[in-house]
Parts: sequence; C-alpha cells; structure tokens
Amino acid sequence: MPRRTSRDIRSDSMIDVLHAVLSAGETTRNDLMRSTGLSPATVVTIVNELIEADVLAETKVSAGRVGRPTSIFGMNAARGRILGIDVAETYVRATMFDTALNQVSYTESARDEHVLEPGSIVETIGLVVDELLQSEGVCREGVLGAGISLPGLIQEPSGMAVVVPNWEWRSVELDRLRERVGLPLVIDNPLKAMVNAERWLGRGRSAASLATVNLGTGVGAGIVLEGEVLRGATNSAGEWGHSLLMLDGRLCRCGRRGCVEAYIGVPGIQHTLRELAPSHPLADVELQSDFISLLAHAAESSTPDDAARETVARTAYYLGSALADLVAVVNPDVVTLTGWTTWALGGQLLSPARERMRSQSPGRAGAAVELEISAVRGNPVVTGIAMIALERSLVDAGLLTTRIPVVL
Amino acid sequence: MPRRTSRDIRSDSMIDVLHAVLSAGETTRNDLMRSTGLSPATVVTIVNELIEADVLAETKVSAGRVGRPTSIFGMNAARGRILGIDVAETYVRATMFDTALNQVSYTESARDEHVLEPGSIVETIGLVVDELLQSEGVCREGVLGAGISLPGLIQEPSGMAVVVPNWEWRSVELDRLRERVGLPLVIDNPLKAMVNAERWLGRGRSAASLATVNLGTGVGAGIVLEGEVLRGATNSAGEWGHSLLMLDGRLCRCGRRGCVEAYIGVPGIQHTLRELAPSHPLADVELQSDFISLLAHAAESSTPDDAARETVARTAYYLGSALADLVAVVNPDVVTLTGWTTWALGGQLLSPARERMRSQSPGRAGAAVELEISAVRGNPVVTGIAMIALERSLVDAGLLTTRIPVVL
Ligand SMILES: [Zn+2]
Ligand SMILES: [Zn+2]
Repeated sequence: MPRRTSRDIRSDSMIDVLHAVLSAGETTRNDLMRSTGLSPATVVTIVNELIEADVLAETKVSAGRVGRPTSIFGMNAARGRILGIDVAETYVRATMFDTALNQVSYTESARDEHVLEPGSIVETIGLVVDELLQSEGVCREGVLGAGISLPGLIQEPSGMAVVVPNWEWRSVELDRLRERVGLPLVIDNPLKAMVNAERWLGRGRSAASLATVNLGTGVGAGIVLEGEVLRGATNSAGEWGHSLLMLDGRLCRCGRRGCVEAYIGVPGIQHTLRELAPSHPLADVELQSDFISLLAHAAESSTPDDAARETVARTAYYLGSALADLVAVVNPDVVTLTGWTTWALGGQLLSPARERMRSQSPGRAGAAVELEISAVRGNPVVTGIAMIALERSLVDAGLLTTRIPVVL
Repeated sequence: MPRRTSRDIRSDSMIDVLHAVLSAGETTRNDLMRSTGLSPATVVTIVNELIEADVLAETKVSAGRVGRPTSIFGMNAARGRILGIDVAETYVRATMFDTALNQVSYTESARDEHVLEPGSIVETIGLVVDELLQSEGVCREGVLGAGISLPGLIQEPSGMAVVVPNWEWRSVELDRLRERVGLPLVIDNPLKAMVNAERWLGRGRSAASLATVNLGTGVGAGIVLEGEVLRGATNSAGEWGHSLLMLDGRLCRCGRRGCVEAYIGVPGIQHTLRELAPSHPLADVELQSDFISLLAHAAESSTPDDAARETVARTAYYLGSALADLVAVVNPDVVTLTGWTTWALGGQLLSPARERMRSQSPGRAGAAVELEISAVRGNPVVTGIAMIALERSLVDAGLLTTRIPVVL
C-alpha cells in the first residue's frame, strides 16, 4: 500500500495554504497563520515558494498604521487558462477558468446518447474545446491543462479504463483523446470531480470528513476522509446511488432492483408521482429538467396539489433514509447536496430529509452530522475536474504530491 | 484536521515491519527487506530499535553456508502479558496473551443483561480480571496493559463516552473502571477491535483496503483504508448492520425498520425460518448459538429439510445484497467474514453470498472484490482489543504514533 513521505507532509501544508487563499480571495501571511494553524516559518516558506512559482501573486502592499507595510496576495489569475470538461450522456460541456478558478466562458454541445463509437465521442470533445478556445481567442499554449470527467472511469489491475454500459475505452482510445484535445489532460469520474470541488471550494475547507451527494438523473456520493478523496480499489467508491433502499424494489437503470437512484433520481421521482396520481399533468412531462422545476413549483403553489406535495414528501423520506445509510457506514462530519435536483427542489427537501436522516442514523452519528446544500454553485463536476487539472499543474511543478489517477 | 508528520512515516514503516514479523513468526533482516519493500537501511534501523526496546528478540543465529551468520528473530513473547477484554451484553470475557500475541488463558463470566448499573458492570469486569490473573499466577506489574471492548463507544465534541441503549458512561464511570482494573487501559468499540485483528493478523497484511463483517446476534463491519481503521466523526463508522436492506421492513432491535441486522443477525435468521415454516422444530429454539448450529446441521443433513435449506439460501441472498452496498460505497479490495454465525454457517453462506454480492455491486467493483472467511480465528474482538493494548505500549515507548482513541 502507498506510504506517505515527508514531501507529502509539506504538500499537505501547502494544500492548507491554498485552501485558505482560495477561501479568502485576498489574504496576508498573518491571516494565513491564524486560519491554517501552521507555524509562521512554514507559512512564510510556502507562500514565498508559491509566489516564486507564480501560483500566488502579490496584489498590493498595505501600509499599516504601525510597522512595516503588509503584503496582500491571492491566487495568480494570470498564470494561464484551465479547462473543465464534463462528458455526460446527453451533452459535452467545456468551461474555461483562469488560474484563480474564476469561470471565464463555456461551450456546450448536445450529444446523441445512442452514438457510442469512441471516435465520434472524442471528436465531439475536440470540437467543443476548439470552439471554446476560438471564441475566447486563446491558443493551446495559453492553457495550462484540461480535466475531463468521464462517466464510469475505473481502475483495473491492468490500468485505467473507462467503462460505461455499452462503451469501453482503454489505452488506444485514451491516446486518441489526448491527441485530439492537444492539451495536458487529467481524467476522472464525475463523483470524484464533484467532491473535489467541495473539498477545495466548499465544506472541505472546514470539515475533516464529508460526503457530497449529487442529485440529478443519476445520484451518487463523493467522499472525503481526512482531506483525501476516497477512491476505493477500482476508483468506484461512492456509488451510493446503486446501494439498496429496498431489496427487490423498483427496477433501476443499472439493471438491478431497489437502488437508491430508482427512488430519488429524477426518473424515480417521476415514478413516485405516477404511483400516486397516474393522470397528473406532470406524470408525462418528457424533459427531466422541466419536470423537476414544474414539480417544485406545483408543490409550493398556493393552489393545493396534493400529489405534487406528497411526491416531494416521499422523495425527502427516501433521501433521508438513504443518507442515513451513508452516515451509518462512513460517519462523516457533514453531508452536502448538489446537482440540479438540489438547485430546483433542495429547499423543500432539506429540512424533512435532515430530520429523517438523523432519526435513522445509528447511535449518535445522526446527531453529529450536518446536512447542507452545497455552497459550490454551478456545475460542480466541471469546477471539480478543472481543480484537478490545476492541482496536476502544481504536482508537475513539484509543489504538491497529490496522487492524480489518470494523467495523459 | 490532523496532519501527518515525519514521525508518522517512520511509524508506518515500523508497522510494516511488525506486520511482517507477526506474519512470519521468525524472520531475518533480508526476508524483511523482501516482504516489506523497505530499504535495507530502514529495515536495519527499525529492527535494531525494536530489539533495543525488547519488542523483538533474537532467537538464534543461523550460520549460512557463506558469509556471516544470519540473525533470526521474532516478537519477544517474554516482555509481559496483555489482556483483551470483551464486554458483551450477556458475558464478560478476559483473555491473556503474551507479547507475541499467543493466547495463554481466558476467563469468562456470564452477565445479566438487565443489570445496567455502571458500578455492577465495572465490578464484573474487575472480578474477571482478578480471577484470570490469579489463575495464571501473574501480578499486575507483569501486565503491560489491557484493552476493553465496550459496545457503543463514541466520540463526542465533549470527549469520549460509552453510549449503549440504557447505559451511558462518561468520565466518572471511566475513571472508576480504570481504578478497579488497575492496569493501563485502552477502550474501543467491538467493530474497531475486530477489524484491528484483521488489520494486524489477517488480510490487513496484504490488502490496502478491507472490510471485516461480523455475523452474530448483531452484525457490523470494520473498515480499514490504506492501512488505517476508519473511525468516522463519532467513532461509529462501520454500522453497516443498521443500514437499510428494506425500507420500512422488519423491525430491528435498534428500534428502526428494515436494517440489515434484522435479516442476518441470528434472531433475523430465525425470523426467516419462522416465516417459511412457523411450526418447524428449530423455530422456537431459545439459545441463539444452539439455533445456528442446529440450522447448519439441518441444512446439510441427508434428510431433506427444505425450510432449513431455504432459510440458509435466503440468508445468503440477504447477506450478499447487503455486502454489495458496502462494496458500492467503500469499494474495498477484500471483505472477510467473522463471528460465530460465520464459524457455524460460513461454509454454506460463502459461495452464494459471494455470487450475489458480485452481481449486485455497481460497475466493476464487484468483479474486483474478494469475499473470504477470516483467517483470524477465536474471538476477534478479544484479539483485536489486545492488539490495540499492545500497540498502545509501543506508542508509550515512543515507537509508534498510532492515534488510539481512548487511553485511560
Ligand atoms: Zn442501480
Ligand atoms: Zn437496526
């Protein structure tokens, strides 16, 4: 098993500093000592090293009332561009960030989910990247790296592979991807990308252990333990969406029965509504995003819609029950909710789901755990995978020692 | 969050060496270099330090055919005694080990589970320890330390406490326990003790991540990730026995519905038999250990007993389904089964439960995971908690830096 070295310890301290800088926006060495708890000598050494490497930039020098002027600094946004690319079943989205992780621009392209030929998927990714770079007038040399989130990325004894139902990529396809995109690449799966955003930009700044739960068409959890993303033996830890809510229950799109996703994924929520009221006007809305917004609206409307309200109540009950399982096994400090079901319906789900989660968690784990809506907005998969690309540039520069699973 | 230091790294290397010595029984410096992958310099330094501290003892010097004689060494069994104490609902067992972790002797005392008064429980523990020491003619000075496994040990912001239904111990009771036993004490909960035995003496020697599942009256899992026991925010990670198998299903003794334990804990298995054949002769056997042995016998008997066979088949189905949830969330390299249901029925459960677990695990995590019966025999709670006491003596000696949750 991999053992940690003294370089890892220095890397951990540097991560604490970068966390604090990203959190504060602009900060000083004195503030960093307070917020990180690191020794003055460590903070000074690390900050100087990061300024030397152009990762941090001094923005101004504030002359305090007494003593020497104080240097104020933040992430150096001008070091280059970073791309975060989310390859989903029905679209490819590429977002450009600066090196302070501010979003600059994005391009999205619809994808026919029935087209499974790797060459075609690679070409779509390549075209989206080309278009984004062109529209921003940025050449490839101006991009430090790109992160690509691919569904189903796993680790096998023979190496990394991308395995999703009906498409399977190995080194040949990954080589083709690297050549077509023409940028330093990292790839990871969406749950790992998403929780990495929470780790760097959300609750990971203050909690030692956390789970981030994505609610959308599919559902899943990313897990961080003592500051590190839990990957598992095949990089597939966190597949809580396909753990059991109900043995032999509803058929899930993964082919098994009774998975959490079959109840709280968007099609599962619509299934609940159809069980309650088969002829409800929302029962046959085709677009999932429309369905969720309309449901959120109907459940809160002043015109009573009992079926919509009961659907939301049952969804919260299922969600809270399933979250209690995550608490039972992993016992995290905090669970955050993210994804587009959360943005549409999270306000209505949060309080009843929290109550159910706490009452169903064994022992006192429930009383100790927080349930919150993630403060990381936008598409956390894109942000998280871009953060991994940025982290990789810091590993390449010899600054961090994070193990990044696939670097192409 | 706790950060690791260079002392931790040295401690990790020492744990690798101790693992290898415990595994081999007797070994040489050259063998250790091969089995640990550590550098010759590191192995020599660590072995000398451990011999110096009397943790290892040179047993003989073998004169090879060429070159210098080779020193052979193993754990020093004569350093003292270690006690492992399992406080269960219906009994207290204390086992004496030597410092090579060989079992010397044990004493067990029945306990009335309705007596919840702390003074009485403390006194029972004290009496069992007194009796064991007396029967072996060992005085307290000859004991390096004792580990006590207490159900329900948790971590709270205000410190450690023991919280089980109807009894709650805090510092007052823990002080009384330390005074009555009169030995350096560590306490931990049974799942953490059990997986610690697997970590040191079983699959933890070769697997980076593992889960050990205890099957008895209650069921639960201990989890080891990258060599460290997963404790969670309140030391209650691994409560997989109280995660859901079936939403709103059978009533569990924890008061919730549908927990895994309600199906594969011994009373749950008997419940399954009663559902299938209410008047079956085993349906009303009162002693749980009798029930499990008789069921194992009936299901394998040449006289057909369909209800017994179907009960075992359903138990394997439930077990495999619930194990798949553990694989989905944690994605370990290996899962081992332990506990007295395993010793009685494990041979019949293993193969169908493995098949179900693999088919129900998401992605390829199922194909990658092993399911095995633990090679750590006897009472793994007692062995594991004794191992924590031994580890604590190495921490006290400045050799290891393992964080041991409660040291009294
Ligand atoms: Zn599923
Ligand atoms: Zn339960």
